[in-house]
Amino acid sequence: MFFASDNWAGAHPAIAENLTRHAPGFASAYGTSDLDQAVERTFCEIFEREVAVFFVATGTAANSLSAAALARPGGIMLSHRDAHMITDEGGAPEFLTGGLRMAGVGGSGGKIDVAELASAINCYPEGAVHSGQLAGISLTQATEIGSVYTLKEIDAICDLAKQHALPVHMDGARFANALVKLATTPAEMTWKRGINVLSFGGTKNGCWCAEAVIFMNPEQTKDFPYIRKRSAQLFSKSRFIAAQFEAYFKDDLWLTSARHANTMASRLAERINVSKNARLAWPVDANELFPIVRREAVERLQREGAAFYPWPTPLELIDRIGPDETLTRLVTSFATSEQEIDQFADLLG
Amino acid sequence: MFFASDNWAGAHPAIAENLTRHAPGFASAYGTSDLDQAVERTFCEIFEREVAVFFVATGTAANSLSAAALARPGGIMLSHRDAHMITDEGGAPEFLTGGLRMAGVGGSGGKIDVAELASAINCYPEGAVHSGQLAGISLTQATEIGSVYTLKEIDAICDLAKQHALPVHMDGARFANALVKLATTPAEMTWKRGINVLSFGGTKNGCWCAEAVIFMNPEQTKDFPYIRKRSAQLFSKSRFIAAQFEAYFKDDLWLTSARHANTMASRLAERINVSKNARLAWPVDANELFPIVRREAVERLQREGAAFYPWPTPLELIDRIGPDETLTRLVTSFATSEQEIDQFADLLG
Amino acid sequence: MFFASDNWAGAHPAIAENLTRHAPGFASAYGTSDLDQAVERTFCEIFEREVAVFFVATGTAANSLSAAALARPGGIMLSHRDAHMITDEGGAPEFLTGGLRMAGVGGSGGKIDVAELASAINCYPEGAVHSGQLAGISLTQATEIGSVYTLKEIDAICDLAKQHALPVHMDGARFANALVKLATTPAEMTWKRGINVLSFGGTKNGCWCAEAVIFMNPEQTKDFPYIRKRSAQLFSKSRFIAAQFEAYFKDDLWLTSARHANTMASRLAERINVSKNARLAWPVDANELFPIVRREAVERLQREGAAFYPWPTPLELIDRIGPDETLTRLVTSFATSEQEIDQFADLLG
Amino acid sequence: MFFASDNWAGAHPAIAENLTRHAPGFASAYGTSDLDQAVERTFCEIFEREVAVFFVATGTAANSLSAAALARPGGIMLSHRDAHMITDEGGAPEFLTGGLRMAGVGGSGGKIDVAELASAINCYPEGAVHSGQLAGISLTQATEIGSVYTLKEIDAICDLAKQHALPVHMDGARFANALVKLATTPAEMTWKRGINVLSFGGTKNGCWCAEAVIFMNPEQTKDFPYIRKRSAQLFSKSRFIAAQFEAYFKDDLWLTSARHANTMASRLAERINVSKNARLAWPVDANELFPIVRREAVERLQREGAAFYPWPTPLELIDRIGPDETLTRLVTSFATSEQEIDQFADLLG
Repeated sequence: MFFASDNWAGAHPAIAENLTRHAPGFASAYGTSDLDQAVERTFCEIFEREVAVFFVATGTAANSLSAAALARPGGIMLSHRDAHMITDEGGAPEFLTGGLRMAGVGGSGGKIDVAELASAINCYPEGAVHSGQLAGISLTQATEIGSVYTLKEIDAICDLAKQHALPVHMDGARFANALVKLATTPAEMTWKRGINVLSFGGTKNGCWCAEAVIFMNPEQTKDFPYIRKRSAQLFSKSRFIAAQFEAYFKDDLWLTSARHANTMASRLAERINVSKNARLAWPVDANELFPIVRREAVERLQREGAAFYPWPTPLELIDRIGPDETLTRLVTSFATSEQEIDQFADLLG
Repeated sequence: MFFASDNWAGAHPAIAENLTRHAPGFASAYGTSDLDQAVERTFCEIFEREVAVFFVATGTAANSLSAAALARPGGIMLSHRDAHMITDEGGAPEFLTGGLRMAGVGGSGGKIDVAELASAINCYPEGAVHSGQLAGISLTQATEIGSVYTLKEIDAICDLAKQHALPVHMDGARFANALVKLATTPAEMTWKRGINVLSFGGTKNGCWCAEAVIFMNPEQTKDFPYIRKRSAQLFSKSRFIAAQFEAYFKDDLWLTSARHANTMASRLAERINVSKNARLAWPVDANELFPIVRREAVERLQREGAAFYPWPTPLELIDRIGPDETLTRLVTSFATSEQEIDQFADLLG
Repeated sequence: MFFASDNWAGAHPAIAENLTRHAPGFASAYGTSDLDQAVERTFCEIFEREVAVFFVATGTAANSLSAAALARPGGIMLSHRDAHMITDEGGAPEFLTGGLRMAGVGGSGGKIDVAELASAINCYPEGAVHSGQLAGISLTQATEIGSVYTLKEIDAICDLAKQHALPVHMDGARFANALVKLATTPAEMTWKRGINVLSFGGTKNGCWCAEAVIFMNPEQTKDFPYIRKRSAQLFSKSRFIAAQFEAYFKDDLWLTSARHANTMASRLAERINVSKNARLAWPVDANELFPIVRREAVERLQREGAAFYPWPTPLELIDRIGPDETLTRLVTSFATSEQEIDQFADLLG
Repeated sequence: MFFASDNWAGAHPAIAENLTRHAPGFASAYGTSDLDQAVERTFCEIFEREVAVFFVATGTAANSLSAAALARPGGIMLSHRDAHMITDEGGAPEFLTGGLRMAGVGGSGGKIDVAELASAINCYPEGAVHSGQLAGISLTQATEIGSVYTLKEIDAICDLAKQHALPVHMDGARFANALVKLATTPAEMTWKRGINVLSFGGTKNGCWCAEAVIFMNPEQTKDFPYIRKRSAQLFSKSRFIAAQFEAYFKDDLWLTSARHANTMASRLAERINVSKNARLAWPVDANELFPIVRREAVERLQREGAAFYPWPTPLELIDRIGPDETLTRLVTSFATSEQEIDQFADLLG
């Protein structure tokens, strides 16, 4: 019963096999091999346009180096106040950008509120050196609480950004989970809406270590190879990241895996909805669930070996959680089984 | 005939297999899994003491974050002027330390000259804020030109460092190749000499991506988890780095692989020593060779598909290379075969 | 009628004269002159203990370099969410610390709420690398809205800090105005409460450019000379900062000037309290007033040449300002005259 | 007998007076006052074109922020290996640029050797991410050893820079001394040659604290206000820097002062040329002299109260200085008198 995080899962067998297949032989290093290039072509096909693709080691690297690519001196990047970049990346966005400030914007259900965003933008008028200058907006898809922005909601943010000539970054650590939820295409969910830079995550969805920064306009990436190198994120045997992505995309493995994770989350949500010891804090869009659980049930589950984390209570829930309750997070993955779900739900009661 | 770099080689089959073996199942993330901890114990055994081990994504990360751990405001780190940290890491040491300066010291044969080091140290007296303050010394074992410091030579540098209360870092991207050359132990080559922090490289010697920062005194690492995290070098599925190291150390695979690479280099060196078209710029200690080759031979080899790089001429060779000659670098690896060597040597003539 | 900022005032005649007095002659540079040292002694006397004094160019430098002295990798510094360091320093604290994050804490009347502070501290447990590690707390005395922490309020913050072994910084851009308001001593307002580092501002209170970072424990400043130098804040002709401070402290000029500014603010507050076109958003403690003014009065005053700024509406006032009203800031200084006050008040109506 | 540095001199009486004249009254802050703007116009007149002028606190700030304006990720700036930015700024250029590396180029007489510069440029080919990318070239006028580049020599460097599309920065800490030596105009010595950014120093030539970054093309300065602010170099009472420059330029005070300093240096050089205890290491172009002095004479002079510094021996002089000799630096200024010179020379013998 492993619901602590999708990064507790291992590697999908097809990805493991492909790595082994590519293990022998020589290939040029630092992202120049035939395999690297073939996988870059695949990204272009998937996104239905020329994109520039840069592999990096971690999701935090993808986000922080995206921010570094957009950074301006004294710059401010706006995101949801509970975004991973603010709460969970140990200051990497600030550090790797040379001091860009991540400024939080409110919004219920894990999503940026467009009116609050507009008013935050107005705090940083052009030319006001004391407040700093805006460098961009970052939204997370799926969000930190597992909700998924609709295409219209992405439009609203991108439209506002465009009015202020601000680039938009998408943190897609769980890109695939959001994509299958919306039943749309990568192009529709990104550049057709106005997304400029994407952190494309593969690790949480069955890779060992496969993250990429995707620029929708390759012409804007002149400095990025240097940004990546000076951040020590350029792999020598880069082809092994490529090998993971090759298998990830083959036969739509990535979509199948994400769909499985989401389905498992729905199954668990159904059980929680009829539980007498738990209720969901938010609707379940993708592969994360946030049940408010009676403390005694939490303890029982942990005693029986279920792995999951309590979650810090956000502002909007402060009045909704009782003294004998705990907000928890459950995450499903490509590797979650129906048996695990049922066993967990039975124990929850 | 792949002699461009040891990072053009793939992954050793035993390492590939071990990754596949660990692919299934759940394990806690961010370096806390049982496997991570078991491999940390192995490092302690290999180094014959408690050490602190931090996996990172690249050799550049290992070096730069080692430097960050030693950095001081306005700090200076001394290394050989042709060290990888100065010539080949795209400014990562400066960037990831917040502006530490790498100051180059001369020395023939790729090794820091101790007299020059002493005189460089004197340029930065305690309290002289204009010049900056010394933060440490970094030496590369094996060096950028493939030479290997003897234990006595390491002693000389570490003794000088100790006199000035300076920590010493070792860039061990090719640690194993140096170790088997000296036929000594990891402990003897590092902390028994006075090395404080080590970049321990596995990638060039048969891993896919396995690098670690090793602190010889674990008590000095209080801030390092944050240094690594803010640099986006903390893997979520860290256990797959651990899995590589597990196989790397099993049955001394790392030593066998390094010994093979060195043997192949020796074999090639013997052939070059009797070639009429090439002569070695320096003796061959480990798995790198630097022949000065007649240009027509260079062209012939490239035409026949041999992969290798020309190399920038260092100061000490300027008068030794003729107008129709090129300094080149050849690197062997665990995957180099005798056939490749012989084929290359035959073509060289 | 200049109420835009106390930094619109010029230099106090006594300070101007002292600079001229010290203009001729030679003296050693970079803070080593007799005058520099004499003024450092004066600081020690004023603070009734050995303190370490470092002159810098701006208040932003004093704050940012104080933060740099306290910074830790992946570090978080807590301050009031409307603190100058967050809202008005163009990202200097983030930049000059290598990415320290300023995290805002709420609290009414411009002061940090201790309960909110406690709960913010709990967001960053020791060892949780993802959230970052706490580096310190900064409070502003007088605050951005001109209120002054009582000694008991400073105690409450410092006690909490001590429980968590966190250093406390005081932004004293308007230190003197707060001091005379409390009718206390520099020692009582700082280190006797638990303040570790102080930004001591002279510029807003009649100097041309005189700011200093004061460490209450000189033994903790080993790296600070390098921190200042690498930030380009070490003046060569440092003695001219010293000359300003010499005059500033002579015959208690600094206290007289601050007292005058506060008295002028009180006089203006009394007039606003009986105005039909304005009311104060907060009580007036020092030399800043924040009246909510009818828009037509604002326009009239501006037409007649009064200089002052509108002020962004903080959360706590959102429901208290009508559609035809504007929150404004008025600042008095050593140079403000009773005539100016009366003229302004008459125009306000 | 103060020859330690031109920054040991005080402030010129005319500059002191002008500060006092501008002390009273209110003026808008942060560089927006009428006086700030008037002085900016004066700069434009002096440089015979529209230039953008930014006051900063120190020469180190002017150099480092110029570099920050030109910086690129993983960037390299080339300068003479003994340039102030490399040897004497405590790492500020690296720190304030987020890790730009200053790479030293050789050249005798303190000047960059154009052939060595060309070969250094070739070390950083476009697109080679490992070596880093070139960001610009910095030359010092007058140089660290007091020599002055001729217009032709500046041309040679700028032409090479242009071929490689590299911007050129001039460190003009002693701009005026070089200018009067060449008997040319500011325009001729800078943008007409190809200089893009200038550190314009006033402090060493009679101001208290007056340094400026001058952009020859104001259109390239969009981000610079933020660069300056985030570096804590934006003065609130900026008008007092302006007041110094106003007096500095009035009636050509700056040229008169620099001419006086140079003349004093020539007078001292003549005496040294006939001394039996000293000889000049290099010809004297501006206001710095580098005599090689017998140690007993050094001791005698110091005993009698002469202030001056020994100087680190550069490579080119290593074989020219005897065991009983010391390389020393003597600096004259606007405040140096003939009597001081004669007294010093008499004691030297």
